[in-house]
Amino acid sequence: VTPRLLVLGGDAAGMTAASHVRRSAPEVEVVVMERGPYTSYSMCGIPYYVGGLIESASDLVVRTPEEHREAGIVVHTHSEARSIDAEARTVRVVDLRDGTEREEPYDALLYAVGAHPTLPSVPGADEHGFGVRTLDEGVRLRHALSRLQPDAKIVVVGAGYIGIELAEALVQRGYRAVLLDRSAQVMKPLDPEMAEYVEKRLVEFGIRVSMGEELLEVRGSDGRVTAVVTDKGIHPADFVILSASSRPSVGMAVRAGCTLGDSGALWVDGRMRTSVPGIWAAGDVVESVNLVDGSRHNVQLGTHANKQGKVAGIDLVAVLRGEEGGDATFDGHVGTAITKVCEWEIARTGLTERECVDGGIDYAAVHFSGTGTAGYLSDPGIVHVKMLAEAGTGRLLGAQLVGNEGGVGKRIDVAATWCQLRLTAQEAQFIDLAYAPPFGGVWDLLQIGARKLVGQLGLSPQL
Amino acid sequence: VTPRLLVLGGDAAGMTAASHVRRSAPEVEVVVMERGPYTSYSMCGIPYYVGGLIESASDLVVRTPEEHREAGIVVHTHSEARSIDAEARTVRVVDLRDGTEREEPYDALLYAVGAHPTLPSVPGADEHGFGVRTLDEGVRLRHALSRLQPDAKIVVVGAGYIGIELAEALVQRGYRAVLLDRSAQVMKPLDPEMAEYVEKRLVEFGIRVSMGEELLEVRGSDGRVTAVVTDKGIHPADFVILSASSRPSVGMAVRAGCTLGDSGALWVDGRMRTSVPGIWAAGDVVESVNLVDGSRHNVQLGTHANKQGKVAGIDLVAVLRGEEGGDATFDGHVGTAITKVCEWEIARTGLTERECVDGGIDYAAVHFSGTGTAGYLSDPGIVHVKMLAEAGTGRLLGAQLVGNEGGVGKRIDVAATWCQLRLTAQEAQFIDLAYAPPFGGVWDLLQIGARKLVGQLGLSPQL
Repeated sequence: VTPRLLVLGGDAAGMTAASHVRRSAPEVEVVVMERGPYTSYSMCGIPYYVGGLIESASDLVVRTPEEHREAGIVVHTHSEARSIDAEARTVRVVDLRDGTEREEPYDALLYAVGAHPTLPSVPGADEHGFGVRTLDEGVRLRHALSRLQPDAKIVVVGAGYIGIELAEALVQRGYRAVLLDRSAQVMKPLDPEMAEYVEKRLVEFGIRVSMGEELLEVRGSDGRVTAVVTDKGIHPADFVILSASSRPSVGMAVRAGCTLGDSGALWVDGRMRTSVPGIWAAGDVVESVNLVDGSRHNVQLGTHANKQGKVAGIDLVAVLRGEEGGDATFDGHVGTAITKVCEWEIARTGLTERECVDGGIDYAAVHFSGTGTAGYLSDPGIVHVKMLAEAGTGRLLGAQLVGNEGGVGKRIDVAATWCQLRLTAQEAQFIDLAYAPPFGGVWDLLQIGARKLVGQLGLSPQL
Repeated sequence: VTPRLLVLGGDAAGMTAASHVRRSAPEVEVVVMERGPYTSYSMCGIPYYVGGLIESASDLVVRTPEEHREAGIVVHTHSEARSIDAEARTVRVVDLRDGTEREEPYDALLYAVGAHPTLPSVPGADEHGFGVRTLDEGVRLRHALSRLQPDAKIVVVGAGYIGIELAEALVQRGYRAVLLDRSAQVMKPLDPEMAEYVEKRLVEFGIRVSMGEELLEVRGSDGRVTAVVTDKGIHPADFVILSASSRPSVGMAVRAGCTLGDSGALWVDGRMRTSVPGIWAAGDVVESVNLVDGSRHNVQLGTHANKQGKVAGIDLVAVLRGEEGGDATFDGHVGTAITKVCEWEIARTGLTERECVDGGIDYAAVHFSGTGTAGYLSDPGIVHVKMLAEAGTGRLLGAQLVGNEGGVGKRIDVAATWCQLRLTAQEAQFIDLAYAPPFGGVWDLLQIGARKLVGQLGLSPQL
């Protein structure tokens, strides 16, 4: 008999696994259920599409359902899974176009349904607010924006990566943008003093930033937004975009018996197996280990979804062939993230100072500013750097970069590698990093930080 | 009695060590002999100064002799060491301004006199050619250029980093530049197919490139250059710059008994001690270990000179205090280098394919092209990537990057870290590198390379 892999969710994690199994195990039937009309698209590209930097939504689609079908994967779009029977190994699926329901059997199930936005449950939000989580929503949003007055005032609720990228895109298109969040700082994955550089830049760019303000109501009349009401006052508005954070969509898996981890996302082992036999999970629904401090977090990033999908695919092939398991494991993350907004590059990896404090870690932190090229070149740019290391050992715990020089952001990958490989600040001083005047001073910024950390911790040798 | 440290050479290595000893050991007398008028300047900045991107030569000087003197270091400029008596612990020094000679005693000697260009010994080269190795020469060169016709034709002999950077600067200033080298390719630290991208770009930028051509004569009359004669023909020219490679200035140290290494530069141990008691060496005069294959090379880079100077300074303080030695060692390099020319960024680390072949290493190489941002963004740029890994183990051996997207070059630091920490391509796939559309695809270029290497070597797991 033909073993049957059923994949719930047709984006990064699901389709990466499906494609791997399709290529590696011709004997397996691979079936995908996707709720929306698209597969394999770049969620991170949505703000650029909404902002008009990308012409067509299809540019964000890496592979269409048709292309997957041509590769031999059975793809059902507009098909939403409703419940899993882990004993019978079946999934109840509804066709969203006609409401018909059916049972889909499986030998192995990959649960990769992603996350859903936690929209504020305030009056008017559902009726008047536009979401921006899926490409579907992005298309609706862009269409709605095109019908606004050129200088319409748009309130973006949620000052995370997507919210900020959207606010920038709106200002670039000529709208007046207000960025609003109940948090005290923009971009919570940064420490407050680093987030301040970002906020300052947003304001300079023309975005009105209102932090520490809680949304209470979205007001409208005749189907049009008129104002946003917060605990601080009333913002007249022509349009509202809700870009709140997203929660992993674990419900169906939990009802099937899958264990949740500390983070509230699905627990999985290194091979992406849940606690229920026959069910794997990958992508935004799972939690993974932070390799710096061993804590477990739900990190919703396409880069992890891809890697986890591949690891799951490798294991699925092995198991469906009766072997013990695949030889790949996803061991965790170090919390690397990056964005570019208002021409500035912002990046982080490892733990923030706040996370060190909360985790009871004895640490040193350094915070300094440098240039993106040699200081004697014209317009050398500015880069703000924060780095952390563990007291006693000197082990590097984290880094944050905010700067206006091209390429600054991706330098976080060096710090990410250092954190993931458990390098100490003492050792980091001796890594053979590249130097030439257009790229910085003779001491790389990250090595200046390492030297400062060694000095502050009283460790040796300090260069 | 006051212990006396004598430093020969007042640039990166020498002054870094001198400054460290000055700060850490107030009881030591620190004396520096520098042949030229400057101390502590950025040699790498000279092409930018010659090209007019930097107004004044003094902008390249990090710290002047006066500033060092204020810090308590005795600095003699225009003072050239002629011979070392390692038994008596004295150095014979000549004052270049008046020709007077004297003996300078030492308890410890740091030999940091750098390198000297290997100018072609062809007729007319001495008389008509301009060098570009020291800031002194840079000042003379810029002055001489200012007296040329705006569209003068300038031949640059030597297609290494400095030669290429100079040719670019000349074209930007409106001159006609010819880049000439007897080597078959520009930028020998790259593999030929990667160097080809660079050569193509230079030509596109307006530089005439003549490779595989050997200089035979520099012709002139009335003190002015008229032509450059090579084995291939005659290039009419108004000016000639000789930017040939440089040899470590080891002569005086060798006569004092210091052992040379395989590379022809001075052998030193990890604390920068030569084979002669009482003599340390650092910077362009020494060789160091390539941590990838254990071979020893003379790498003339300011970044190593700074680190080695610091390591020497730490050891000098310990030894001058009667202790066994400093706790810092310079263990080696991985051959990281970078430049930016004609708006392109070029970087390399580890071994080239040629070096793998010459070293009898069993390896795999991958060579591919990608984009600097997500492909769906407008103008995503192009990045050419080459990576190498060892057969059997998958250990990463080297990487080369050539691209036109800002920030591409410094991504070499990730590969440099991987090579130095002996990471395998299998492991590299799982490093948590940053992803967002303005910075590339969901798979980082270096991880795409790692995956390809794993596949090509038939290793597991391959993502």
